Amino acid sequence: MYLEKDQARGVDGTFMWLIEEVGELAAALREGNRDEQAAEFADVLAWLTTIANVAGVDLASAVEQKYGAGCPGCGLLVCTCDDAEKP
Amino acid sequence: MYLEKDQARGVDGTFMWLIEEVGELAAALREGNRDEQAAEFADVLAWLTTIANVAGVDLASAVEQKYGAGCPGCGLLVCTCDDAEKP
Repeated sequence: MYLEKDQARGVDGTFMWLIEEVGELAAALREGNRDEQAAEFADVLAWLTTIANVAGVDLASAVEQKYGAGCPGCGLLVCTCDDAEKP
Repeated sequence: MYLEKDQARGVDGTFMWLIEEVGELAAALREGNRDEQAAEFADVLAWLTTIANVAGVDLASAVEQKYGAGCPGCGLLVCTCDDAEKP
């Protein structure tokens, strides 16, 4: 939807937009209603996808690769790693 | 995979993990190879999904709602909004 613009802006220029949306998500989680929160979640995911596209990373494959077989720590689909570990 | 842990940690405790991963993604985009970048993209998306779950937001529906019909600005599937506008 935005590929040409994103490519022209590059990773650096696009990353700042991601951070701005992360900030808006934080604000919505504090003060927004469910619809506003949902819109901000969508924006963060949209910018994350955008940066992945510009960087040449397939986001769906990346998630499948890292989490498709379960927790990277314990290997289970419902994580049993110790709570003190990085979750 | 991590729902019980995430719920115990709550939105605030989970948000800091998201930010940490966003930082790691920035570092990987500067210095990492494609595989390292893909893993960091996966981590950011995993934490974003986690926070959405804890907040009771359906991430897939949120994206469909905001972007399913095209660009929220111009309404087209390939955005034609002016480049000076918020992309």
